[in-house]
Amino acid sequence: MRRSVPTSVPRWCAAIGALLVATSLAGRAQTIPSWLDSYREAAGRLIGAALANDFAWQRLAELTDTFGPRLSGTRNLEDAIAWIAGEMRADGLEDVRTEPVMVPHWVRGEETLEIVSPGPRSLALLGLGGSLGTPPGGITAEPLVVSSFDDLDARAAEVSGRIVVYNVPYQGYGTTVQYRTGGASRAARHGAVAALVRSIGPMGLRTPHTGGMRYDADQPEIPAAAISAEDAAMLQRMQDRGTRVTLRLSMEAHFEPDAPSSNLMAEIPGRDVPEEIVVIGCHIDSWDPAMGASDDAGGCIVTWEALRLMKQLGLQPRRTVRVVLWTNEENGLRGATAYRDAHADELDRTVMMLESDSGVFEPAGFGFTGSAEARRIVTDIATLLDVIGANRIGPQGGGADIGPSVEAANIPALSLEVGGDYFLIHHSPADTVDRIDPADVARNAAAIAVMTYVIADMPERLPKTE
Amino acid sequence: MRRSVPTSVPRWCAAIGALLVATSLAGRAQTIPSWLDSYREAAGRLIGAALANDFAWQRLAELTDTFGPRLSGTRNLEDAIAWIAGEMRADGLEDVRTEPVMVPHWVRGEETLEIVSPGPRSLALLGLGGSLGTPPGGITAEPLVVSSFDDLDARAAEVSGRIVVYNVPYQGYGTTVQYRTGGASRAARHGAVAALVRSIGPMGLRTPHTGGMRYDADQPEIPAAAISAEDAAMLQRMQDRGTRVTLRLSMEAHFEPDAPSSNLMAEIPGRDVPEEIVVIGCHIDSWDPAMGASDDAGGCIVTWEALRLMKQLGLQPRRTVRVVLWTNEENGLRGATAYRDAHADELDRTVMMLESDSGVFEPAGFGFTGSAEARRIVTDIATLLDVIGANRIGPQGGGADIGPSVEAANIPALSLEVGGDYFLIHHSPADTVDRIDPADVARNAAAIAVMTYVIADMPERLPKTE
Repeated sequence: MRRSVPTSVPRWCAAIGALLVATSLAGRAQTIPSWLDSYREAAGRLIGAALANDFAWQRLAELTDTFGPRLSGTRNLEDAIAWIAGEMRADGLEDVRTEPVMVPHWVRGEETLEIVSPGPRSLALLGLGGSLGTPPGGITAEPLVVSSFDDLDARAAEVSGRIVVYNVPYQGYGTTVQYRTGGASRAARHGAVAALVRSIGPMGLRTPHTGGMRYDADQPEIPAAAISAEDAAMLQRMQDRGTRVTLRLSMEAHFEPDAPSSNLMAEIPGRDVPEEIVVIGCHIDSWDPAMGASDDAGGCIVTWEALRLMKQLGLQPRRTVRVVLWTNEENGLRGATAYRDAHADELDRTVMMLESDSGVFEPAGFGFTGSAEARRIVTDIATLLDVIGANRIGPQGGGADIGPSVEAANIPALSLEVGGDYFLIHHSPADTVDRIDPADVARNAAAIAVMTYVIADMPERLPKTE
Repeated sequence: MRRSVPTSVPRWCAAIGALLVATSLAGRAQTIPSWLDSYREAAGRLIGAALANDFAWQRLAELTDTFGPRLSGTRNLEDAIAWIAGEMRADGLEDVRTEPVMVPHWVRGEETLEIVSPGPRSLALLGLGGSLGTPPGGITAEPLVVSSFDDLDARAAEVSGRIVVYNVPYQGYGTTVQYRTGGASRAARHGAVAALVRSIGPMGLRTPHTGGMRYDADQPEIPAAAISAEDAAMLQRMQDRGTRVTLRLSMEAHFEPDAPSSNLMAEIPGRDVPEEIVVIGCHIDSWDPAMGASDDAGGCIVTWEALRLMKQLGLQPRRTVRVVLWTNEENGLRGATAYRDAHADELDRTVMMLESDSGVFEPAGFGFTGSAEARRIVTDIATLLDVIGANRIGPQGGGADIGPSVEAANIPALSLEVGGDYFLIHHSPADTVDRIDPADVARNAAAIAVMTYVIADMPERLPKTE
C-alpha cells in the first residue's frame, strides 16, 4: 500500500502553514539580513510544507519497519536501496541512480557470553564489528577488569591468558570510544585472549552497543565484544571482592568476501548553473542489532525530504541539488571513498556538502566548517530557521561520509545538529523509530531544505574553504 | 573474601547516627503518640545503625553478583539459599533452617523470533514462564495484531492459523497483565497457533519482560512469549500499512520434573512470649533473564537486615521475629502454600506478616490490611519513620508469599511500599543491583526494623483482622 502522496491532499494545509510561517518570518524582519529578503517566501513555503503533515516520519517508519537492519553485505541493505530509488522516482526527483561500491561483509553469527562460575548465567553481548570469532566451543578464561589503558599497562603481568574487560564509564563518545576501537589490540599486546568493552553510551537497561573496531597490524588478533554497563560494573565488583570468575565467550563472527552495494543519489538539476552542485546526505547502511532509525535512516529521510519538498513546491534552485545515500559508513567508509573517487572531476564544482548523522531529534541548527566569509553567509541563512529553533551555527561541521570529498577539495561542510539522547540508543537494539518525534523529522527536514535551497540558489557561490 | 561485619567498625558511626535520629525524633515529639515514648530510643538506634553504612547494599550486590538469576529448579537458587543460610548464622540469628518444597522446574531453552519476510531480522523475545515450546524448526505463521480481547473476539474469523500479537499499551500492571497471563488461551480459543504479548511495563529500550502465564484447561495449549513495546508497535504499523508479514517463533521451553527447593528462615526468639511470631520476608527465587535484584533479592535483604540490625543492637523483642525467604513465588507459589501448611499450628499465633516485593526504592511506608484498631496502631508506629520518609500507611497490604497464610488465619498484613520505576525493569534483563540506591536499602531496612520491632515488642498483641 503506497502512502498517499502529500502533494495533493494537504496542499491547502501546507499553504496555510506557509502563510503562518511567512507571517512569522515577516514579524522578525529586523533580525533577517536584507540580502535574504527574496528568500523569505520560499523559506516560509518550505517550512510550511514540511510541518503540514507527518509524511516524512511515516516514510521513515515504513523504511525501517520493512527493511530492518541494513548491515553492509546484507540483502536488507540492497532491498532498502532499491525501494528508496523507486520512491525517489515516484517523488519526481531526477537522475535517480546507484553507483556500485564493493563493501566488507562482516557476519555476526551466533554469539554468547556466560559466567561459567560462580553460578552459570548469560550476559548480554554484542560482538564488535570487524572482530573475528572464537574457536568453536568458545574461549574459557578468567576476566581481568581494568579501568583505563594506563590501568591495563600497570597490570600487564596479569593479562596473559585472560579476557580483558574495559570497565570505563562513559565520558562522551569521542573520549570513550577508543576502548572500543583499539582495546582488543592493546590487550593482545600483553597476551589477552579476548577483550570485552563496557558499551560506549550512557547507562541504559542492560543495553549493549556494538560498533566498529580495528586490529593493529603488529598484534595478535583476538575477539572483541561489548557488554552492558551493568555487567561491566558487576565484573568489577566481583574482582574487587576477590571472587574467582570464569567466563566463556563464544562468537561466530567472521568476514565473507566483499559484497556488491551502492551509493544512491537523486537530484534537482540547477536551472542556471547545473554544473555547480550542492550535496546533502546520510548513510543508508546500519549496524545489525536494530533498525538504524536514528543511525542513520532518519538522516536519509530528512535530506531526501528536503529535495522532495523543493520538488513539490516547484522550487528549482540556480544550482543542482543532490541527495546522496552513502553505503557502508559503519564498517568501512567504502561508500564515502568511492564517491570521492567517482566524482573527483566534480569536487571543485561542489559548492557545499551537508551530512545528517547525529539523529533527528529536537533541531538545533548546523555545525559548519569553512571560511569566515562562508560562515557569515550560513549564519545569515540560519536566521530564516529561527522559527523552528534551528538557527544555531556551531563551530564544526562535516561527517564521515562527506569527509573524504570535503578534504579532497576544501568544500564547505555542514552537519545537522540536534538535541536528544542519540548515544543512549546508538548502535544498540533500541535504535528504533519509536524514539523519533514526527514533528522533529518535519522541522529538521525544513531546516535542511531552507539552508540547502538558499545556498543552491543565491547569486554568488558560497566561498570555498581556505 | 568476607565483607567486614559492621558490628565492629562502624559502631561509633552508628552511635552518632542513632544520636542524630533520636534528636530528630525528639524534635518531632509532638507528632509521636505518647504510647510510643519508650520506643523512641530503639527506633533511633535502629535507624542510625541502618544508615551508618552500605552493608546491606553490598550484601545485595554480593548475592546477586554471585548467584545471578534464581529460577525455581536451578542450582543458582539452591546455592543462593545455602549461602544466605550461612550468612544468617554468621550474623548470629537463631534457628536458621530450611524447609523442603518441591517446585516446578520450567526450562526456557533457546528461543528466537524472526521476521522471515519482509527483510529477515531478529526480534527481542522472552518466552513466558509456563509456556510450552514450539515444534523443532519453530512455528511459521502470519501475525494478527489486536489491541484488546474485544478486538480479538471481533476478529475471531481471522485468527485461525495466525500468531496473535497483543499490542496493548501499558496502563498499569494490574490492568494490563491479563494479556500475559491469559492471552494464549484466549487466542487459542479462536485457533491461533501462538501468542505474543507486548511486554507488561512502560516503554524501555526494546526491553522484553517475561512473567508467568496459565493455560485454560479447555483450550489447546499454544506457545506464548513477550516482545518489546517497540516491536509490537512495529508489527501494528506493518499490519495497518497492509504489509504481509511472516514470523517464525522457535522456543525450546518445557517442564522437567519438579525439583527440590526450600523456604529459608531465621529468628530472633521472643524474650517473653516466644510462641507469638511476627513474620517478615520476601521471595528468594527470581525470573531467569536477570539477577532479580529488585524482584526480589532487595526484599530479602531489607527484611533479613531488619533482624540483623536488632541482633547487632541487642534488641530482643517480647515476641519472636522471623524472617522467611520463600521459594518459587514467580512460577508456582509452592513456597507460600508449603509454609502455610507446615506452619498451620502457628498461624493463630502469628501476630503480623510483612512482605517486601515491590522493589527497594525511595521509601514511602507500608500498605496495611487488617482491623481498624490495628491500622491505628500501625499508623502510630509509622510516625517513628517520618525522619526517613516511610510514614505513610496505605489502604492495602499483603503479598503473594504471605497471602495463603494471611488468608488462612486473618493475620494482619503489611507490605513495604516504595517509589521508583519497578515496572520499568520488572522481569526484564535490566533487573540488576545498579538501579538500587544504597541509601534506599538502608532506609527501607530501617523502616522494616522499626515497624517490626515495635509490633513484636509492644505489650498488647496487634489485634487480628476481623
